[in-house]
Amino acid sequence: MKPSSIRKYVPFHRRFSIPLKDRQWPDRVIEQAPIWCSVDLRDGNQALAIPMNIEEKLEMFRLLVQVGFKQIEVGFPSASQTEFDFLRRLVEQGEIPDDVQVQILVQAREHLIRRSFEALKGVKRAIVHLYNSTSPLQRKITFSDSSKDDIKAIAVKGAQLVRQLADEAEAEGSEITMEYSPESFNDTEIDYAIEICEAVMDVWKPTVERRMILNLPATVEWTTPNVHADQIEYFCRTVKGREKVWISLHTHNDRGTGVAATELGLLAGADRVEGTLFGNGERTGNLDIVNVALNMNSHGIDTGLDFSNLPHICEVYERCTRMSVHERHPYGGELVFTAFSGSHQDAIKKGLDRRKKSAESDPVWEVPYLTIDPEDLGRTYEAIIRINSQSGKGGVAYIMDTEHGLELPKSMHPEVGKIVNDEADRQQKELNADEIREVFEAHFVNLSKPLSLGEYELFHQTETPGMVRCIAQVVYEGKELQIEGTGNGPISAFVDAIEHQGWKNFRLTDYRSHSVGKGSASNSAAYIQLQDVDNGRLLWGCGIDTSIEIAGLKALVSAFNRLQHKPA
Amino acid sequence: MKPSSIRKYVPFHRRFSIPLKDRQWPDRVIEQAPIWCSVDLRDGNQALAIPMNIEEKLEMFRLLVQVGFKQIEVGFPSASQTEFDFLRRLVEQGEIPDDVQVQILVQAREHLIRRSFEALKGVKRAIVHLYNSTSPLQRKITFSDSSKDDIKAIAVKGAQLVRQLADEAEAEGSEITMEYSPESFNDTEIDYAIEICEAVMDVWKPTVERRMILNLPATVEWTTPNVHADQIEYFCRTVKGREKVWISLHTHNDRGTGVAATELGLLAGADRVEGTLFGNGERTGNLDIVNVALNMNSHGIDTGLDFSNLPHICEVYERCTRMSVHERHPYGGELVFTAFSGSHQDAIKKGLDRRKKSAESDPVWEVPYLTIDPEDLGRTYEAIIRINSQSGKGGVAYIMDTEHGLELPKSMHPEVGKIVNDEADRQQKELNADEIREVFEAHFVNLSKPLSLGEYELFHQTETPGMVRCIAQVVYEGKELQIEGTGNGPISAFVDAIEHQGWKNFRLTDYRSHSVGKGSASNSAAYIQLQDVDNGRLLWGCGIDTSIEIAGLKALVSAFNRLQHKPA
Repeated sequence: MKPSSIRKYVPFHRRFSIPLKDRQWPDRVIEQAPIWCSVDLRDGNQALAIPMNIEEKLEMFRLLVQVGFKQIEVGFPSASQTEFDFLRRLVEQGEIPDDVQVQILVQAREHLIRRSFEALKGVKRAIVHLYNSTSPLQRKITFSDSSKDDIKAIAVKGAQLVRQLADEAEAEGSEITMEYSPESFNDTEIDYAIEICEAVMDVWKPTVERRMILNLPATVEWTTPNVHADQIEYFCRTVKGREKVWISLHTHNDRGTGVAATELGLLAGADRVEGTLFGNGERTGNLDIVNVALNMNSHGIDTGLDFSNLPHICEVYERCTRMSVHERHPYGGELVFTAFSGSHQDAIKKGLDRRKKSAESDPVWEVPYLTIDPEDLGRTYEAIIRINSQSGKGGVAYIMDTEHGLELPKSMHPEVGKIVNDEADRQQKELNADEIREVFEAHFVNLSKPLSLGEYELFHQTETPGMVRCIAQVVYEGKELQIEGTGNGPISAFVDAIEHQGWKNFRLTDYRSHSVGKGSASNSAAYIQLQDVDNGRLLWGCGIDTSIEIAGLKALVSAFNRLQHKPA
Repeated sequence: MKPSSIRKYVPFHRRFSIPLKDRQWPDRVIEQAPIWCSVDLRDGNQALAIPMNIEEKLEMFRLLVQVGFKQIEVGFPSASQTEFDFLRRLVEQGEIPDDVQVQILVQAREHLIRRSFEALKGVKRAIVHLYNSTSPLQRKITFSDSSKDDIKAIAVKGAQLVRQLADEAEAEGSEITMEYSPESFNDTEIDYAIEICEAVMDVWKPTVERRMILNLPATVEWTTPNVHADQIEYFCRTVKGREKVWISLHTHNDRGTGVAATELGLLAGADRVEGTLFGNGERTGNLDIVNVALNMNSHGIDTGLDFSNLPHICEVYERCTRMSVHERHPYGGELVFTAFSGSHQDAIKKGLDRRKKSAESDPVWEVPYLTIDPEDLGRTYEAIIRINSQSGKGGVAYIMDTEHGLELPKSMHPEVGKIVNDEADRQQKELNADEIREVFEAHFVNLSKPLSLGEYELFHQTETPGMVRCIAQVVYEGKELQIEGTGNGPISAFVDAIEHQGWKNFRLTDYRSHSVGKGSASNSAAYIQLQDVDNGRLLWGCGIDTSIEIAGLKALVSAFNRLQHKPA
């Protein structure tokens, strides 16, 4: 921003001052989940370019119930016919489970309150959420310099009518919980906010058995989240009759710290959280409940919300709201369980391997770079690792193993990793699993130049048990010839045969093989490492064949062929 | 998450324990900007499905310089040929301004360190950023149960080589600043992290005049941001030679609280921040520097970074990284300066109106629901308000004014607002500015049924100055006829003429008009409110015409025609 613009903004210290010198919240940790209230169908919906239609709202409502929400704000029925009709449909179709409270929002204005109760007729359990705006900024601008007493009077008058109509509704068999929000709480003088809340409590007369909800919205996020926590702690410690109210948080994300504000607000003593799936809502959005709840899960806290099928939840959300979940959005984003960096990939692979071995005895989740097991959200490991020029050997080996069933020997990883990385560098793009395999095959598998293997015979020498004599037809630099050698197995016999030709001074330094896939159609993979005696260079080759024996010989030939190339 | 899954995660209190009982940071406010270091070209780039090519990197580098970054991490040149080549190009083409330090990342391994210094040859000013991973998790998993001493030895050995090669580079005229990161700092035993950092300091021997950088990465975000702040404050207060180091933050966003962790870390005493534009980076991303810097701007702090042309920055970012800035992303997102809710729109309109009147005398930014003036980011008010069924009268009036130049009288707003909202409800979608105008015209402007105005003549009666006699040709319910009346102007004469017909018992209660647009081709708009004497109902009509006189008569006819409809 230009310095000339910056001057018009108020410094932190001139804006907020909470008289709290012995704050407790920084010494606490989160140990249990709050009461959750979804406002997807209200605060979320009202911020959509194209609001949900009734069918979409119904699908969203059912999803929220399925996830486990017991309090769901379903709209502002006095402000819109669509929302009125939607609530009627929920009530009349019996869509609301007995253990779920639907919540409706209403401004502290008589005709709106009356209309809201019309919309609720016949509901079993509901929360009536009354609000008016209380901050100095709102009093000055929106309410044309109204006094504090004027604003308090609006709240009290609204509360009285809600009390009266709630009593009437309860007489008809509904159970009504009352909620009051001093809207823009976080920008309101804290003692005035308490005064107005206590005035509403005086009207509603909550008890410990039948509490009311005091929702303290950070309608617009104005400051760092520690100040929000101070506000909540001060409020909780100061308001009269704390034990008769549920203190509720409702944060927004204008400064990008809405999740933090909610978490620190919970440390500060709040009981309840309002928010939406993936943080849909006005401007930068509401609190993302998925995020906060999964943060809690990742520290062993059961939240009552089940996001174990997150891809499904994402799909319904994106379809109904027409909003997207960003690729880097915590937990839900497409890329958040993907590691691109080689060192990250190595570490993740090691963590997953160790876990596979010890999952029974040591159930604690300890995998570097992953705070949570993707499988617990219905996501998979397969997507975790992609390969680009930044990726290390571990990542390539992981892909070769999980995608293609080829368990490359550990000392082969650097050699393969470098060639794949160079190729990604050269192409200036990420390589997918199939492209990685292509690179691997081109450079390591069943290589046939300058040497290629034709038919061969093995003769087991009875005079020296275990010794084998090999006679093989080969092509070398385009010429067909027959070579012969002996050794304590086919590989060493073939090594001997090559050595006799004097093409290259080398020795065999490592050999591994394993079967690939299952059943009768399975292949074998063999890996052979040779050392160039002239310069000490070590190089691996790979052979793949339905015969384990031929795979081994092809691995040998591949490694031998790689030795013919000059060092890079 | 399923309860059976939740058990494998470690509770907060078992994971983190910082021995800090007299913490200072919650009592502080942010008063100045840190040193910023962009890691877009390294941590950001390495997390892209398709990494930037050299041309894209160059464009990004130039953008970062233009924004005002003085420290820019340009890659991991020892890990990738592309990054090596890019750095060479920066150096050899003279792309690096004299006041900008390029930074390169390197693991504490000999061949990588040597290769990194090769890449830096001839650079004027650079930061060499050495790291190794220090957390118990990394020691156990990645380094196969290495001991604390082993890990410290890796750091010290790397630091010694960096010191030696930096001395050589300085002898050749480069200025090298050294940076050390105990990677996964936030998950490392804090006293061990300090021990290892002090061991590196012992090798590098920083002074107050030539400080080194200690970067304390939250490589993976594991806990609430207050714990991060405790870690930073404890580190700052405990490390020996605090005055000889710049303490740097490097947060990630796995728990959605990376911005908060950085802000609280600054309160806790850090000097420097590493991050990227819009938080690009591994998994959920790095710290979003745009977000933190604009948070500071919004509290009057000059950051040295200029995001006054944010749409341009977004465009370059999205093109080079192939990532998107989400619609609700703080400051940069398409929807963050859009208010959909009617009450929000009313308040914003009042705030903007008041500001327009008093901008000279009262420069403080005070507009409800907007923490920042969109114009300070190169964005505009025009986009702020869209209309859907949730929108109030204020929003519609604002659109009619700013988009169409029609200044509807205040008492007309509810009537227009309701009709527009009903239409949005009916269509179940947002209405854009043109659609709103269509609805307005269809319901209010130049209405011609049942009454339409044809030709008319006005006779100024000389015997009573100011009195006018009107003779008009009209069509009423399909029948042509001539009507006559008198009054103290054309409007009242026409009212008189209609009244004589006895079609409806009404009276004129309000009248306004204004010109629309500028120059000779401008129109006039007139608004007339009539009251139905039979039932007290008040209704507005509007007339638009190049003649102010005819506009007034058309407004009258429009209002009269609206009166003929039955009340809804």
